[in-house]
Amino acid sequence: MDRTSEAQRRELVANRETLKRIFIMREDDSAKATLLKYMEQIFFGLQDFLKDHVGITEERSLREMASRFQNSLISEQPEKKLADVITELVEDIAPHAVNVASPYFVGHMTSAMPFFMVHLAAFVAALNQNVVKLETSKIVSIVEKQLLAKIHRMIYQQDDAFYSRHIQSVDTSLGGFTEDGTLANMTALWVARNSILNQAEGFAGVEQEGMFAAYQALGIERMVVLVSQLGHYSLRKAAGLLGLGNKNVIGLPIDANNRVDVDALARAVKEISADPKTRIMAVVGIAGATETGSVDPLPRIAEICAEHNIHFHADAAWGGPTLFSEKYKHLLEGIDMADSVTIDGHKQFYMPMTCGMVYFKNPWAMDAIAYHSTYIARPGSVDLGIKSLAGSRASTSLILDSALKVMGVKGYGILVEHGIGLARQFAKEIRARENFELVTPPELNILTYRYVPARLQERLQNAEPKEAVRINQCLNALNIVLQRDQREAGKSFVSRTTFRRPPEKGGDVVVLRTVLMNPMTRLRILKEILDEQEQICQTKLGKAFGAIC
Amino acid sequence: MDRTSEAQRRELVANRETLKRIFIMREDDSAKATLLKYMEQIFFGLQDFLKDHVGITEERSLREMASRFQNSLISEQPEKKLADVITELVEDIAPHAVNVASPYFVGHMTSAMPFFMVHLAAFVAALNQNVVKLETSKIVSIVEKQLLAKIHRMIYQQDDAFYSRHIQSVDTSLGGFTEDGTLANMTALWVARNSILNQAEGFAGVEQEGMFAAYQALGIERMVVLVSQLGHYSLRKAAGLLGLGNKNVIGLPIDANNRVDVDALARAVKEISADPKTRIMAVVGIAGATETGSVDPLPRIAEICAEHNIHFHADAAWGGPTLFSEKYKHLLEGIDMADSVTIDGHKQFYMPMTCGMVYFKNPWAMDAIAYHSTYIARPGSVDLGIKSLAGSRASTSLILDSALKVMGVKGYGILVEHGIGLARQFAKEIRARENFELVTPPELNILTYRYVPARLQERLQNAEPKEAVRINQCLNALNIVLQRDQREAGKSFVSRTTFRRPPEKGGDVVVLRTVLMNPMTRLRILKEILDEQEQICQTKLGKAFGAIC
Repeated sequence: MDRTSEAQRRELVANRETLKRIFIMREDDSAKATLLKYMEQIFFGLQDFLKDHVGITEERSLREMASRFQNSLISEQPEKKLADVITELVEDIAPHAVNVASPYFVGHMTSAMPFFMVHLAAFVAALNQNVVKLETSKIVSIVEKQLLAKIHRMIYQQDDAFYSRHIQSVDTSLGGFTEDGTLANMTALWVARNSILNQAEGFAGVEQEGMFAAYQALGIERMVVLVSQLGHYSLRKAAGLLGLGNKNVIGLPIDANNRVDVDALARAVKEISADPKTRIMAVVGIAGATETGSVDPLPRIAEICAEHNIHFHADAAWGGPTLFSEKYKHLLEGIDMADSVTIDGHKQFYMPMTCGMVYFKNPWAMDAIAYHSTYIARPGSVDLGIKSLAGSRASTSLILDSALKVMGVKGYGILVEHGIGLARQFAKEIRARENFELVTPPELNILTYRYVPARLQERLQNAEPKEAVRINQCLNALNIVLQRDQREAGKSFVSRTTFRRPPEKGGDVVVLRTVLMNPMTRLRILKEILDEQEQICQTKLGKAFGAIC
Repeated sequence: MDRTSEAQRRELVANRETLKRIFIMREDDSAKATLLKYMEQIFFGLQDFLKDHVGITEERSLREMASRFQNSLISEQPEKKLADVITELVEDIAPHAVNVASPYFVGHMTSAMPFFMVHLAAFVAALNQNVVKLETSKIVSIVEKQLLAKIHRMIYQQDDAFYSRHIQSVDTSLGGFTEDGTLANMTALWVARNSILNQAEGFAGVEQEGMFAAYQALGIERMVVLVSQLGHYSLRKAAGLLGLGNKNVIGLPIDANNRVDVDALARAVKEISADPKTRIMAVVGIAGATETGSVDPLPRIAEICAEHNIHFHADAAWGGPTLFSEKYKHLLEGIDMADSVTIDGHKQFYMPMTCGMVYFKNPWAMDAIAYHSTYIARPGSVDLGIKSLAGSRASTSLILDSALKVMGVKGYGILVEHGIGLARQFAKEIRARENFELVTPPELNILTYRYVPARLQERLQNAEPKEAVRINQCLNALNIVLQRDQREAGKSFVSRTTFRRPPEKGGDVVVLRTVLMNPMTRLRILKEILDEQEQICQTKLGKAFGAIC
C-alpha cells in the first residue's frame, strides 16, 4: 500500500506554494494534460476492474483486509502525491470493492449506470453549489424547483394551471430532495405528524411544543402508522426518531400476492379509529416492496384513507420510475391519490449514490416543517433549505435533470420494461427447474426463490406443520450456505432474506432474492447463475445436507 | 436554451441499441477521446467561469431566470444529445450559478476547493458503492471505519490500545457520516435522547415506546437542550423532529466575546435540575458559531455537564479542523471532553457538497439508535447502516480519506492559519477605517462589522437607549441596502445577519458577515471590498440616508 519512498515524501511537505498549486488549476498544456490523465485513469482504470471482476469476491477475506486498515493517525506531512493516491484508489481499493455494475450482480438495488452519470457528478462537485439557499446556488435552485415539478407531474398529473402557479413559487413546495429514501420517508411522516398534531385548538403545534404536550392537547396516548409487514425498515426508524415509538408501526398481514390485506387494513382502521386515545398518523402503501417488488392496492388504500381523513403515504422508492413505461405504468395505479410519495434517484433513475426525493400532493403541506434563521432561509425567500430535513445540500438535482434530457421518458421506459420482462422470463425458468421453488413471483422486477431438491418438494407439500418446519429449517440452512458459497466464489451475487411465517404455516423461510435492473443482465446470465447454484448444491453440499434433510 | 434541431432530435430516439451504448463504455480510441473531451469541457469550461465571474451577480434577475424554467413536462423522446447537455451546463447554467470559488466570495462557508476534490468525487460516483452494507461496499466500509478512527483520534486523543480495539470492531462505532451538519447534530441529540429516556426501570425504551410513554415512565413533562443564543438553527430543528419541541431549546445569554455565559448556564442547570418534571437532555457547546465564529468555553461546560451527568455535545461543524493547526488548536481546548462532536467535511475540510460527521466519545453510544432488518444490517454484521440516520449512503469518506493523505495535518493546518491570520488583519483594517464598526472581532476566521458613518458613531455612543434604537434602525436599513447593492453589482459578496438585542441595549443590529476560508483571499481583496462598500454608501446612498439618519 505504501509506495511512497522517504525521498518522495520529503518533496510533499505542505507549504503555501504547494497549496496554491492545488487550489488554482493551471491551464498550460502540460498541467491540463496531467489533470486529464488522472481523470482517464479514474474512468478507464476502473473500467478494467468493472470488466474483469464480477460480483462480490471474498478472495481476500474481510479479516485480512481489515488488518491493513489499522492505523489511526493522520500523517503530519502529506503522505502521498495525488498521482499515487489516485493509483491506489484505482488499483488497490476498487478491486476489493463490490462490482455493482456487473450483470452478474443481481442481489441489490444497485447496478451499472449510464457512464455520463460520472460526468454529471463531476460537474456538480466542480460547481459546488449549496442549494440550502439562493445565495450559494441561484439558478441551480430554480432548476431544482422545475425538476420537482416535472416529477410531481409524472406522479400527480395536475393541469397546466397548477404547475404554472407552483413551479417557481416562493411560497409553495411540490417536494424536496433528501439524502436517500429513508430520509424521504422520514420527511413525509414528519409532515404527517405535524399536520395532525397541530389540529388541537389553541395549541401552538407539536414542532414547537413537543410530543408529550401535543398528545395531552389532543387527549391521546398513542399514534400509529399502518403498513404491510413488508414495509421498509426506515418506517420503523422514522417512527422511533419522530417520537411515536417504532412499535407503533403496525405490520399488517399480506395476501397471497404479497400485497397488504386491504380487508385487514379496513378492519384495523375501523378498530383504531374507535379508540379515542389513539390516532392513525398515516397509512403507507408500498409501490415496490424491497424484498418482493410487490405493489400494494393503492386505489383501495386511498379510498380507506380518504374515508377516515388519514395521511396516505406511498413508498415508491423502488417502483416510482415504473411510471415511465406505457406498458407497465398501470401497476402503480392510484399513486396519484397519495398525499406524499417517496422515490429514489439512485435506484431506478440509475443515478450515482445517493438521491432521495419526496413529493406532496398539497403544495402547502411542507409548511408544517418550515424553519427559518436570521442569516439564511429568511421568510419569503426562495431558499430551498426552509423546508428540508438537511441543511447544506448538494445540487444532485442537476444530475437527474440532465439525465432526463438525455434519456427521455422513453429511454427510462425501456429500462423499466427490460427489468420487468426479464423477471418474468426468469420466473418461468425457475419454475421449469425441478430443484428450485419460485417463492414470490415478480410483479415488478424483483423475485425470490430457493433451492429445494425435487425429492423434498413433494415431502414438503404433504407434510404436517411440525414436519414442514423441520424441512424448512433444513432448507434455510442449505440456502444460507448456498448464497454464501456463490458469493465467495466471486462470479455472481444474489442476496437473501427471510420471510417470517408462523409454525402452523411451516415457519420461517430463507429465500434468494434477485433485483433485475441492469440492462446488461440477460436470461442467459441468469441461467448461468442457476446452474452454478445447482452445482454448488449437488457437489459441495450434497453429502452434508443429504444426511440431515 | 434549445439548441437541438428537429432533425437532431429524431436521431436521439431511445432504443435498446442507444441505451446499450450509454451503459457500456467503449474503449476504442475515438470513444475514449470523446469521453475525455466531455470531462475537459466540464473541468476547463467551468474554470473559465470561475475565472471570469466574481461573486454573485444579479445581472439576470431571478424573476427573469425563473421565467425560463416553466416547463413541467418531461420530454417523451430524448431532448438533447449528451454533448449538448454538457455544453448547456457549462455555458448556460454555470454562469448563472454562484461562483463560490471566487476569492471575493467571503459571505458563506463555501469557497474554492483543491481541484483534486473533483477527481475524487468522480471516482466515488464511478465506483458507486453503497456503504449502508458490506455487500455493496466491502473494502470501502473498512476504509470508512479507519477514517472515523483517525478523526476520532484527532478529537479525543485516546491511546493506541483504544483504537486497536475499536478501529475495525463490528460491535462498536466511533462515529458516522451524515448528509451534513444538521443531520450530524440530529444524530447526536437522537443518541442523547434515547440514552436518557431509556433509563426508567422496566421501560422498553423511547425508540420503541415513543416520547409520551417515555415521559410517563420517567415521570417528566419536558426535556430541554441548553445552548447559547448563537446556537445553529439545526438544533431547534432537531428538537422539533425528535419530539422535544423546539421551544425547549433554551437560548442562553452570551458574554461580551459572544461565548455562552457560563454562570448563566450553571444557574440554568441548577434551576432546571431542581424541577422533577424537567430533564436536561443535552448542553451544546459551540466551536465556531455560524454567525460570529466564536468558541464557547468548552472545559467549563464540560465540568458543569460532568457534575450533573448531562450529555455534552460540541457543535464543531465549522471550527473542528482548527485542530489541524499547532498554533490555534488551543482555541478548541476541552473538545475532547464532549460526549459527541459534529464536524462538517464540506466546510473546513474543503470537500465538495456535502459531508457531515458525528463522533462519540463512547464507542457504544450509537447502540441507542441501532436498527436491523432481515435482508441487510443483520445483527453482528459490519454493515455501517445499522447505526445511521440515513439508509443508502455514498462513500464520501473515500474523498476525505484521500484528501488527508494528499494534504497531511500540516496542509490543512496552513489553510486554518491563513484564515485566522487574515481575519485578524481584516479586523485591524476595519478598526482603522472611520466609517466602519467592527461588531464581533474574530476568534476563528469569521467576523462581523457594519457601516456606521463616523458622525453617527459618536452620536450612538452617547445616545439614550431610545435614541440608540432609532439610530440602529437607520443603520440597519443602510447596511441591508449596502449588502444587497454590493451583491447585485456582481463583484464581491459578503453576507448579512441580525443580532437580536433588547431595546434597552439599543435594539437589533444588522451586520455584514465575512467568512475567510479561501486561501486565495488576501488582505488586498478585503480592502477592495471595503472600498466598494464606502463608495456605495457615499455616492449611491449618501443622499437618501443622510436625510433620515
